[in-house]
Amino acid sequence: MSIKTTLTVLTFLLFSVASVTAAEPEFAKDIADKAAWVRDHAADDNKSMAIVESLTTEVGPRMAGTEADARAVIWAQNKFKALGFDKVWLEPVTFPTWKRGVEVAEIVSPFPQPLVITALGNSIPTSEQGLSAEIVQFASLDDLKAAKPEQVNGKIVFINRKMTAHRDGRDYGPTVSARGDGPVEAAKLGAVGLLIRSVGTHNHRMPHTGNSRYKEGVTKIPAAALSAPDADLLVNMLARGNPVTVKMTLGSQPGPMYTSHNVIGEITGSELPNEYVLIGGHLDSWDLGTGAVDDGAGCAVTMAAAEFLARHKLPLKRSIRVVLFANEEQGLWGGNQYRDRHAKSVKNIIAAAEADFGQGPVYMLSSRVKPEALPLVKQMQQIMAPLGIEAGDNNASNGPDLIAMRNEGMALFSLHLDGTDYFDLHHTADDTFDKIEAKRLNQTAAAYATFTFLAANAPMSFGSGESYLVEKAKAERNK
Amino acid sequence: MSIKTTLTVLTFLLFSVASVTAAEPEFAKDIADKAAWVRDHAADDNKSMAIVESLTTEVGPRMAGTEADARAVIWAQNKFKALGFDKVWLEPVTFPTWKRGVEVAEIVSPFPQPLVITALGNSIPTSEQGLSAEIVQFASLDDLKAAKPEQVNGKIVFINRKMTAHRDGRDYGPTVSARGDGPVEAAKLGAVGLLIRSVGTHNHRMPHTGNSRYKEGVTKIPAAALSAPDADLLVNMLARGNPVTVKMTLGSQPGPMYTSHNVIGEITGSELPNEYVLIGGHLDSWDLGTGAVDDGAGCAVTMAAAEFLARHKLPLKRSIRVVLFANEEQGLWGGNQYRDRHAKSVKNIIAAAEADFGQGPVYMLSSRVKPEALPLVKQMQQIMAPLGIEAGDNNASNGPDLIAMRNEGMALFSLHLDGTDYFDLHHTADDTFDKIEAKRLNQTAAAYATFTFLAANAPMSFGSGESYLVEKAKAERNK
Repeated sequence: MSIKTTLTVLTFLLFSVASVTAAEPEFAKDIADKAAWVRDHAADDNKSMAIVESLTTEVGPRMAGTEADARAVIWAQNKFKALGFDKVWLEPVTFPTWKRGVEVAEIVSPFPQPLVITALGNSIPTSEQGLSAEIVQFASLDDLKAAKPEQVNGKIVFINRKMTAHRDGRDYGPTVSARGDGPVEAAKLGAVGLLIRSVGTHNHRMPHTGNSRYKEGVTKIPAAALSAPDADLLVNMLARGNPVTVKMTLGSQPGPMYTSHNVIGEITGSELPNEYVLIGGHLDSWDLGTGAVDDGAGCAVTMAAAEFLARHKLPLKRSIRVVLFANEEQGLWGGNQYRDRHAKSVKNIIAAAEADFGQGPVYMLSSRVKPEALPLVKQMQQIMAPLGIEAGDNNASNGPDLIAMRNEGMALFSLHLDGTDYFDLHHTADDTFDKIEAKRLNQTAAAYATFTFLAANAPMSFGSGESYLVEKAKAERNK
Repeated sequence: MSIKTTLTVLTFLLFSVASVTAAEPEFAKDIADKAAWVRDHAADDNKSMAIVESLTTEVGPRMAGTEADARAVIWAQNKFKALGFDKVWLEPVTFPTWKRGVEVAEIVSPFPQPLVITALGNSIPTSEQGLSAEIVQFASLDDLKAAKPEQVNGKIVFINRKMTAHRDGRDYGPTVSARGDGPVEAAKLGAVGLLIRSVGTHNHRMPHTGNSRYKEGVTKIPAAALSAPDADLLVNMLARGNPVTVKMTLGSQPGPMYTSHNVIGEITGSELPNEYVLIGGHLDSWDLGTGAVDDGAGCAVTMAAAEFLARHKLPLKRSIRVVLFANEEQGLWGGNQYRDRHAKSVKNIIAAAEADFGQGPVYMLSSRVKPEALPLVKQMQQIMAPLGIEAGDNNASNGPDLIAMRNEGMALFSLHLDGTDYFDLHHTADDTFDKIEAKRLNQTAAAYATFTFLAANAPMSFGSGESYLVEKAKAERNK
């Protein structure tokens, strides 16, 4: 046995002994008991249902940069105050705007028919007379990328990627790439327009909007989404082997810069008021529906969770900060602004969780904490298990508005929302209050209240801003 | 025992003996056997699916009086010919037209939001600037009728009757009265406009159009249907106790007279070619969807049923006439024209059945025949039972385009279609081919083929034009 080997063995033994003997962190019994009470009672009064109803009825659609955006900000301030939050404030968020206009399309030949479309966010307009061209079909963005310019040049590209429904929404990424990058990839090959099959999982005549991007140096082309039945119609018509010509007319266009606000409500903690649990959703919505599941639900469950803890005077060692982010939909502007303003105090954020995947229920709790804090996570998972919540891993990454702060090493939890039917409604006119089921939303609110209560009273840091999470984020970005 | 009593007893005995001894009519064994074969094989080739696909893809929406109406007539002629019908002809049908225009609405106050509406068929336009007024809510047409003019005067009436789903669609009648008679009843009380909750059974953002009526001497007011979520939104907003003002703008308007056609295909019978089984559906559709379930399905199953019998050279004593009726949606114009032209030869129609309640499956066979023919009906029901079809009564009344001929004493069968989800799609943009399920449509086509084969080979009349059915119709009309 060499000296080196001996040292290794000794180190191993020492480490093992330390693991066994050092007291693992745990929540105080009183806190754990109270958390169980919160879990079992936080949904009793349907508060989160009332909040979504209020937002969708009294504001409705609230696309970033519209007049309704400003009304939503006022609604949120007033709601925080009415709910008894200790502090309510605004943090400005400035971004470019985009405005929807006329959006119509039709098959010109061989068999004239109207088509139901909606412009993709950020799309430029067509000319007022509309754009007429033969369509060329691709099964996916990858198929388009593999095409030759002579197949595409002068045509309207039609990408027919079908999305399948899953609890974790895992087919969204592979499908939504056609929406985000389709305009650039089609234009690179000389296309004059883009029509994608809606990124959705239902077969109603309901197109899904959502953001798209252009790229410096690549021609901007108008881009829209077809409803699923309209995409099927084009497929059937193309199957007859003759060219299909479509005319689309879009009046959407960019607008001036606009300043909206992240709206923030805080319940002040007793012992460490500068430290806080960060929860929330995004306040903006697309313009087609009333933003009930995206993301009225997320705003409501987090507001209701904090309000419940305050109203019942539960002990809160740290503060609870509910952030309703501005303009998530058109580029994560609110989340990025939050990072710009708060990155330097990331250590104050004991833990964060954003609800932006529909109404729930929550089916899993995963974490992104330093390893020393994992026993606490395990305890949280055990306390939340009676809600039907499984234990997840330590690679939580949910919450689009938390991405920027995650990259700063913020400790994060994911309360995984069941997204099986989320993409039936997401970004459509059908995202309305009647789709919200009290039983599902209440479970989500109870899960958020329980998580928030425990995180606010954690006996130690989860590692926000410490090297483990900073390095983890760095490694992920470099992958 | 008086003489009178004795005579009564004797009459009873004679009648009983006659009942027992007279041979009941029945289908020949060969015909019954062949009918069972038809039942089991008529759906093998998915022919009716192909026909609906063709109609919805190659024509699509085909509202009566539009350019697409003319294309549908050409499609139907060509399809009959391609399917090998012996005779194909047109019978002109003339009617007034109506054209949809812009149709937008919004809540003006207290909480501005867009509303999703569609004009009711026959609605006059608003002014170009739109119509703004406070809304007044009623739970049903009856509640509106019971209102006082001072409640309604100068307002937009909002009727929020919710329709429930049933296999036999029995809640359609009580709900659709608000659509048909709402404009007149609202105007009588001084209303300036009408908004009804869509006559439908789903909660998608998909308004249902459909015909409405005005009345000589009552002011015509613009009328539209809200999608179910929009009706719910108004209910929630009104529940706050403050006046709600809505602005609606309709560009719909009446057009000139138009002549379309009932398109008729016939397979010629061998023994009694002038007698025929009358089956069919209506060729026109509303303009929002592509008319797949209403009534592409009905056209397809009846065309496919006749084609199957001809292609397999099954014996046909009588002819089969498939009638694709013109303009059912805006007032049963095709059915009424058929009566005008063919009432005098009603006895030639051995039996009739129209499919106009979606894709099926068929769950019951009921009849409207003279009592002497009931043993035949029973035999037909037994032969069709393996398709999952129950035996119904002798009061069949289905088929809107057959009402006029029914009133002339035509023998009628109802192949009752399962309408549980029919009103999820009926008269909406969502009535598209992707909603058609092969299994359901195929069962319906097989049921029609079996029924048609048996009726064409019936050993006796079902009573068309005979006194029993003439008197029955008269009695019903006088009720």
